[in-house]
Amino acid sequence: MSHQSVVASELTLMAKRAKATVAQLRSAQESQRVQVLNKLALLLRSNHAQLLAANQLDLDAAEASGLSPSMKDRLQLNPGRIEEMAQQVEELEHWPAVLGRIVSSKAHPQGFQVEQQLVPLGLLCMIFESRPNVIIDACALCIKTGNALLLKGGKEAQHSNQYLFQLVQLAMEGLLPAAAIQLVHTREELQQLLELEGIIDLVIPRGSERLIREVKKRAKMPVIAHDRGLCHLYLHQDADPSMAKNLVLNGKTQRPGVCNATETLLVHQDFPQEAFQDIAAALLQQSVTLKVDAKTRERLTVAQQQSPLVLLAQEEDYNQEWLSLILSIKTVSNMEAAVEHIQHYGSKHTEAIVTNNPITAQNFILTVDASCVLHNASTRLNDGATLGIGPEIGISTAKLHVYGPMGVEQLCIAQYVIKGKGHLR
Amino acid sequence: MSHQSVVASELTLMAKRAKATVAQLRSAQESQRVQVLNKLALLLRSNHAQLLAANQLDLDAAEASGLSPSMKDRLQLNPGRIEEMAQQVEELEHWPAVLGRIVSSKAHPQGFQVEQQLVPLGLLCMIFESRPNVIIDACALCIKTGNALLLKGGKEAQHSNQYLFQLVQLAMEGLLPAAAIQLVHTREELQQLLELEGIIDLVIPRGSERLIREVKKRAKMPVIAHDRGLCHLYLHQDADPSMAKNLVLNGKTQRPGVCNATETLLVHQDFPQEAFQDIAAALLQQSVTLKVDAKTRERLTVAQQQSPLVLLAQEEDYNQEWLSLILSIKTVSNMEAAVEHIQHYGSKHTEAIVTNNPITAQNFILTVDASCVLHNASTRLNDGATLGIGPEIGISTAKLHVYGPMGVEQLCIAQYVIKGKGHLR
Repeated sequence: MSHQSVVASELTLMAKRAKATVAQLRSAQESQRVQVLNKLALLLRSNHAQLLAANQLDLDAAEASGLSPSMKDRLQLNPGRIEEMAQQVEELEHWPAVLGRIVSSKAHPQGFQVEQQLVPLGLLCMIFESRPNVIIDACALCIKTGNALLLKGGKEAQHSNQYLFQLVQLAMEGLLPAAAIQLVHTREELQQLLELEGIIDLVIPRGSERLIREVKKRAKMPVIAHDRGLCHLYLHQDADPSMAKNLVLNGKTQRPGVCNATETLLVHQDFPQEAFQDIAAALLQQSVTLKVDAKTRERLTVAQQQSPLVLLAQEEDYNQEWLSLILSIKTVSNMEAAVEHIQHYGSKHTEAIVTNNPITAQNFILTVDASCVLHNASTRLNDGATLGIGPEIGISTAKLHVYGPMGVEQLCIAQYVIKGKGHLR
Repeated sequence: MSHQSVVASELTLMAKRAKATVAQLRSAQESQRVQVLNKLALLLRSNHAQLLAANQLDLDAAEASGLSPSMKDRLQLNPGRIEEMAQQVEELEHWPAVLGRIVSSKAHPQGFQVEQQLVPLGLLCMIFESRPNVIIDACALCIKTGNALLLKGGKEAQHSNQYLFQLVQLAMEGLLPAAAIQLVHTREELQQLLELEGIIDLVIPRGSERLIREVKKRAKMPVIAHDRGLCHLYLHQDADPSMAKNLVLNGKTQRPGVCNATETLLVHQDFPQEAFQDIAAALLQQSVTLKVDAKTRERLTVAQQQSPLVLLAQEEDYNQEWLSLILSIKTVSNMEAAVEHIQHYGSKHTEAIVTNNPITAQNFILTVDASCVLHNASTRLNDGATLGIGPEIGISTAKLHVYGPMGVEQLCIAQYVIKGKGHLR
């Protein structure tokens, strides 16, 4: 057998062993899941020194191989980040049981009961890069939801991932089958993994756009991708100026590096000029670079126009997920033009309107296609915690299975249950 | 340009034109959708003679090409079948509006509202064979749910499909954009169609196992398949004998040719022998062929054992979706053995248990993985009407997006809407 086919058959065996635990995971007691999560949080805290040492090996290798500073930042653990991981695990520990939850129940006129109960999806495969916390998020969510899991992390975080995985195994010992969660080691196996159709039920890639594109293209099984967020905030002509200012600043500057940050500001041409200049001044004061179209530039003060932070926008700027202190701005002549811009450049992630007119808001909500549409609220509010779904694995911008954050409920599916007394058709 | 690439670019244009109607479909008034459905039902009835004439052309061609009798039966329309189509369309006409329906609404502690509203999936592609009624089901469901639709039917039904499609176009005239629903003609284009990733949002194949397998293998976009139903009925030792008998007969004989008919009977070894012989007698009286294992055979009367309708089952018989008056039977030593058999041979469609013990039933429900699990009820009850979801396009046995019948709600997805008063993070 060639090396490739040896790898493929080993992987197949691994995946089959994981799959074989699905029935056992599903019928485990909630108390077992809770105990595993409890132990995992404790283990993360009590082993944080060893974890930091493992992480340091990855950081040293990153240093040697010249990894970019932003990649290194994502790779790095510190006591604060480890505590956050432990808290996330504890949040799931205390989260209401999701398996077996009855999401609908109706008495049929003929006298039997029709229910829907949440059940696990099966065997998931998580493919991720850099951030070692992803492994803990994914494991904790799968432990809670009774899904089996294959993990495939990036080589750059191999020591951190290996150590975290050991903690997960230790937490599961004697409570859940060890084969339920497994770590796949080398990167070369990606293609083999993506061909295990019928064994792996769902692949979830998390990382760079390149990784996600590749997985979507090559996977033979369903993929739920967590793509980019190119989020727009639209200021309608009747928007409250002070509310508008707060929402722009919050959306762009509160945490610019995340997917629900505001990337493009669309402004109605009749939005008051002074109020707009006031917003621009506040943005410039916070060192935000403004990429403006010609019409917007005209509406700035002369001093603002001459600021080195104010640049004329190129077409492709409106296609950028900046993830930094840069904001594209465009003046539009009406809401239709704003919606058209969003339809063209948007990523179906998060879109917001600021208006005092509820009918305008309703039209915006009705027309704009995004996992979350907001009226008079910051784009930064679109996350699992705000939406009440708890810890999540990412935000799906595809409209199948889940549109928005993928949390515990979205890692399950509703199964019909009919309880009769001998009912026939 | 080669013929293939001409076809591909024509198809791409068609698909893009359909896709371009998505925003308009989504924001159309419910009254427009209702009017289209109303007109369509009227047109089906008033044009039934022409429709039968078109269908006759397909039947003649089928005759000439030697199509199998069961294929011809599926192809054939008659006044009763046309009336059924019209009634299905009217059921959707009167079905409550699904678009914009608020499926959850919560006040966030910070004072803003978080809602989820149903929105369409986008552009669907339906690939189907023989039965011309599929085209009307699919069009009516998409009209109701605001989805655009590409239709690709089998060549064997081309005249019927073409005529039905014209009626749909006529019904939409002046109410919904004509490009929203389009009929793709020749079979050779399947591969090109399955490569329009990013334009077509979802493919739904409906037809033979071979067609479904092919579409799943070749499609670059998500596929929701409606696979086979190999449904089991398990008689536990404490099952009520007369209820058991009724459920077996109803499951097997009420309509054997459909996916929720009972295909395999599993019987606990301690289920009373006389009651079992009584069930066997009733089945034989209705000309059901029994494929039994050795242990089951021993439990029959001598006369039953000698019946030409009683045959020893081969291993592969338990893998058969009979769709006819044949029933596989196996005696099992306990519930675990029944569940194991179901896990091995089941198709995740419909599985039922007959027992008087609610704890046994609960264990069965908790362990068995199927879109619908029934306790003391006929497998035949698993359909959209019984489950209260209305007309459906088929039953999904995959656990992503939908597990069970795919009706109007399942052709939508919930979009988050946040209504604030300037709320920040």
